[in-house]
Amino acid sequence: MKTGKDVREACRSGLHKTQTSGLANGFVQANLVVLPKSWAWDFLLFAQRNPKPCPVLEVGETGSFKTRFLADGADIRTDIPKYRVYRDGEMTEEVEDIRQLWNDDLVYFLLGCSFSFEQALIEEGLEIRHISEDRNVPMYRTSIPCEDAGRFKDCPVVVSMRPFSPENAEKAALITREYAGVHGCPVFVGDPNEIGIRDIGKPDWGEAVTVKEGEVCAFWACGVTPQLAAMVAKPPFMITHAPGHMFVGDKLNTDFKI
Amino acid sequence: MKTGKDVREACRSGLHKTQTSGLANGFVQANLVVLPKSWAWDFLLFAQRNPKPCPVLEVGETGSFKTRFLADGADIRTDIPKYRVYRDGEMTEEVEDIRQLWNDDLVYFLLGCSFSFEQALIEEGLEIRHISEDRNVPMYRTSIPCEDAGRFKDCPVVVSMRPFSPENAEKAALITREYAGVHGCPVFVGDPNEIGIRDIGKPDWGEAVTVKEGEVCAFWACGVTPQLAAMVAKPPFMITHAPGHMFVGDKLNTDFKI
Repeated sequence: MKTGKDVREACRSGLHKTQTSGLANGFVQANLVVLPKSWAWDFLLFAQRNPKPCPVLEVGETGSFKTRFLADGADIRTDIPKYRVYRDGEMTEEVEDIRQLWNDDLVYFLLGCSFSFEQALIEEGLEIRHISEDRNVPMYRTSIPCEDAGRFKDCPVVVSMRPFSPENAEKAALITREYAGVHGCPVFVGDPNEIGIRDIGKPDWGEAVTVKEGEVCAFWACGVTPQLAAMVAKPPFMITHAPGHMFVGDKLNTDFKI
Repeated sequence: MKTGKDVREACRSGLHKTQTSGLANGFVQANLVVLPKSWAWDFLLFAQRNPKPCPVLEVGETGSFKTRFLADGADIRTDIPKYRVYRDGEMTEEVEDIRQLWNDDLVYFLLGCSFSFEQALIEEGLEIRHISEDRNVPMYRTSIPCEDAGRFKDCPVVVSMRPFSPENAEKAALITREYAGVHGCPVFVGDPNEIGIRDIGKPDWGEAVTVKEGEVCAFWACGVTPQLAAMVAKPPFMITHAPGHMFVGDKLNTDFKI
């Protein structure tokens, strides 16, 4: 599967049902959030106030499941390998197709994903530890508060962590700040305790990676944040992608560089 | 008036009623748009899809007239020197205070303004022609379409123009791309005809400036675009700042650099 379109067609036909990491190299991947229209304003406001964890790349018109910007006419209901369904803030099921769940009152949001800037880091010669160790990126709940917006409140920023030598951490910060539309530069580099992370070996999502002697931890705002915000706010109905099972677009990662 | 707070207090007490250009140097200035809640979703979507002309810096909760981010507790109804009121897409009055017009169903939007990046250009030694010539920046309707969003559709991008030597135009583009949250880099540099501008000497808003022999025209997306979009969409009620009479915040222009 060389292009975003290849991945989406394989998802639609049921041929691809697993994670999208490493697929269609260079094509943008995105987080999905689907909410009822009555919750969409609060969510878009939450994203506007928290652009680092919630970089909005595309929002559908109410009831529309076709994309216009990230991909030409992709179907949000079928073109992602796996979805999670939440009712009143609790995950109730994982499904591979949401056509039966779709209705005219739903609004979809596609949010930027760190896969976009990881490619840029790799191209600049940096080692991404969770890729070298073939793990899911470690993610942590922090003590950094998100800005409240309507019913989305009291939610902490979730971060993903990548360890580097101090020199490479600075390089990574400079590279990712150019990706302002896709999480941008790290929210913090340094002692995990300072942002409320007690044990770097026990991430809240994903898997721990090795932090070598002399390395520093670089933390980026993470697209899991809006899922956590929704679990706190408990909208009656919500659909997201399953972790790592992303929407793959026609746009390139480099399209999101400033 | 050295700070944004000084300017806002002078507006509130009625001591300052004129343009804000050049006041409180270094403090961010912003465009105002106020709409009924039933139009706010379409407008925020329009802004999300058109970030270069509509860089959203702050959005209020429904009914709220107090700011939280650009300034601490500024009053949107009194802290701007002059407002324009539109009914069904037509401007009906200019007022210095909107307390009598405010109601619990209104939502305010503060959008980035090119004043923010002009300061950066000046600090890098570039001459801003309309400032040298003491005129309002020339603005033009272009043939570049905005992306539609709900009822906001069929609206062209409005641009502001600043002439430079080719070398300085490139420098200006590099400086302003770092201000991705405040219009970013130019949308076009070159022959005005290519973006549908027939006569550079006759701007649609503001005043014409001298374009010297050998200079090129650099065009930035302009905050007048959402006003034009609203005049096309004709919401029943809308309030904006009067041109040049901006909201001045506590944040600095440099806070909006990536």
